[in-house]
Amino acid sequence: MAATIVMPRDAPKIKLDGTAALGAEIVLYDRPGEDRDAIANRLCDERGAIFAHAYADPWVIEGQGSAGIEIAEQLGHQPSTIIACCGGGGLSAGLALACPDSKIIPVEPEGWDDVARSLAAGEIQSVGQNPPPTACDALQTPVTAPVNFAVLHGRVEPGLAVSEFEVRQAQRFAFAKLKLVLEPGGAAALAACLYGKVALDASSVIMLTGGNVDPASFARVIQSSN
Amino acid sequence: MAATIVMPRDAPKIKLDGTAALGAEIVLYDRPGEDRDAIANRLCDERGAIFAHAYADPWVIEGQGSAGIEIAEQLGHQPSTIIACCGGGGLSAGLALACPDSKIIPVEPEGWDDVARSLAAGEIQSVGQNPPPTACDALQTPVTAPVNFAVLHGRVEPGLAVSEFEVRQAQRFAFAKLKLVLEPGGAAALAACLYGKVALDASSVIMLTGGNVDPASFARVIQSSN
Repeated sequence: MAATIVMPRDAPKIKLDGTAALGAEIVLYDRPGEDRDAIANRLCDERGAIFAHAYADPWVIEGQGSAGIEIAEQLGHQPSTIIACCGGGGLSAGLALACPDSKIIPVEPEGWDDVARSLAAGEIQSVGQNPPPTACDALQTPVTAPVNFAVLHGRVEPGLAVSEFEVRQAQRFAFAKLKLVLEPGGAAALAACLYGKVALDASSVIMLTGGNVDPASFARVIQSSN
Repeated sequence: MAATIVMPRDAPKIKLDGTAALGAEIVLYDRPGEDRDAIANRLCDERGAIFAHAYADPWVIEGQGSAGIEIAEQLGHQPSTIIACCGGGGLSAGLALACPDSKIIPVEPEGWDDVARSLAAGEIQSVGQNPPPTACDALQTPVTAPVNFAVLHGRVEPGLAVSEFEVRQAQRFAFAKLKLVLEPGGAAALAACLYGKVALDASSVIMLTGGNVDPASFARVIQSSN
């Protein structure tokens, strides 16, 4: 199926190249500044295309929840806790639905923890006006959506936040000990656990979600200690 | 159990540190120049210790063969072919014994392909006087041993060799596509397959064996294209 993907201009080159290699047409937008949803909706109107939101879509939530189904199948039971990175809340919502017996803990970058604050406040809150820079390019979502919040509210809490340093430490841990390549956002859940922010037991599952990191960025992280 | 490990002085720091972190005493030797086996045998004499050779030992061969047992269990059958890196021939011999129905293909660095030449010649041959430098630190074995050759001869062939460039390409492929950190020697079997040196089918297994690579070395490889 032909697909047009609206992607941030500052996405890692490996993600842009990988998307293009799969045959998609890529439309770039500037973040912050441009409204991704508005661009995508305009393209849908012009082309008669179907809009598939990155997280505010029940089918996307169900698709991300399939990770929870796989976890439960491989373990033979639903885990006590699943710690997962969180951008717009699609993965967290999917896991909550797929594993109703599991505690779900979403982890966001510091300053981008709008889901954690929304859960605490009981209503949707967006990130502030000038959120700090973060290397977690996949988790830079300004606000969650009603369909996600409806699933998460009262079900998933508390949300946690990790610093940029904690994320890099998790990337270095994964490189040295797990022999895995993690992009920053994919290391957020591991970072929360390495820094003792989560009570783990033998049935806890930490999701490592994504390794699309450019070589220069990864090289810089693994060669430094700060 | 107390353990003394005789390791080459030029081993990656991550291997030396990892060995020390597990509580071993490390005795360094220079390669080329010093005879690792002689040093280890002298230590055994002095201390009443048991000599465990890196590959010329039936128990080590059996231990390495457990990888073949795991492969067969996970697949539900013995694979058609297992492609594996080869230093002294311990892993190849173990796989040959563990998976008697599988074709085993050992892969060595160019200039260090003494096992391939030994298999072709029908008798043990050592690497030449001045083997080329190789990044595959784990595969720098000057000669296989009778216990390994006895298992391999007539059973495992042909042996293949890969260039340093092919190894680096395999490391880059694993980084970008598999999201795995491979040390050079651990990428040798993958390199042989990426360069079409092996006839693969749907039941072939490529072993990726080791990710103990120093950050600076890995950073250099993933950021270059040569």
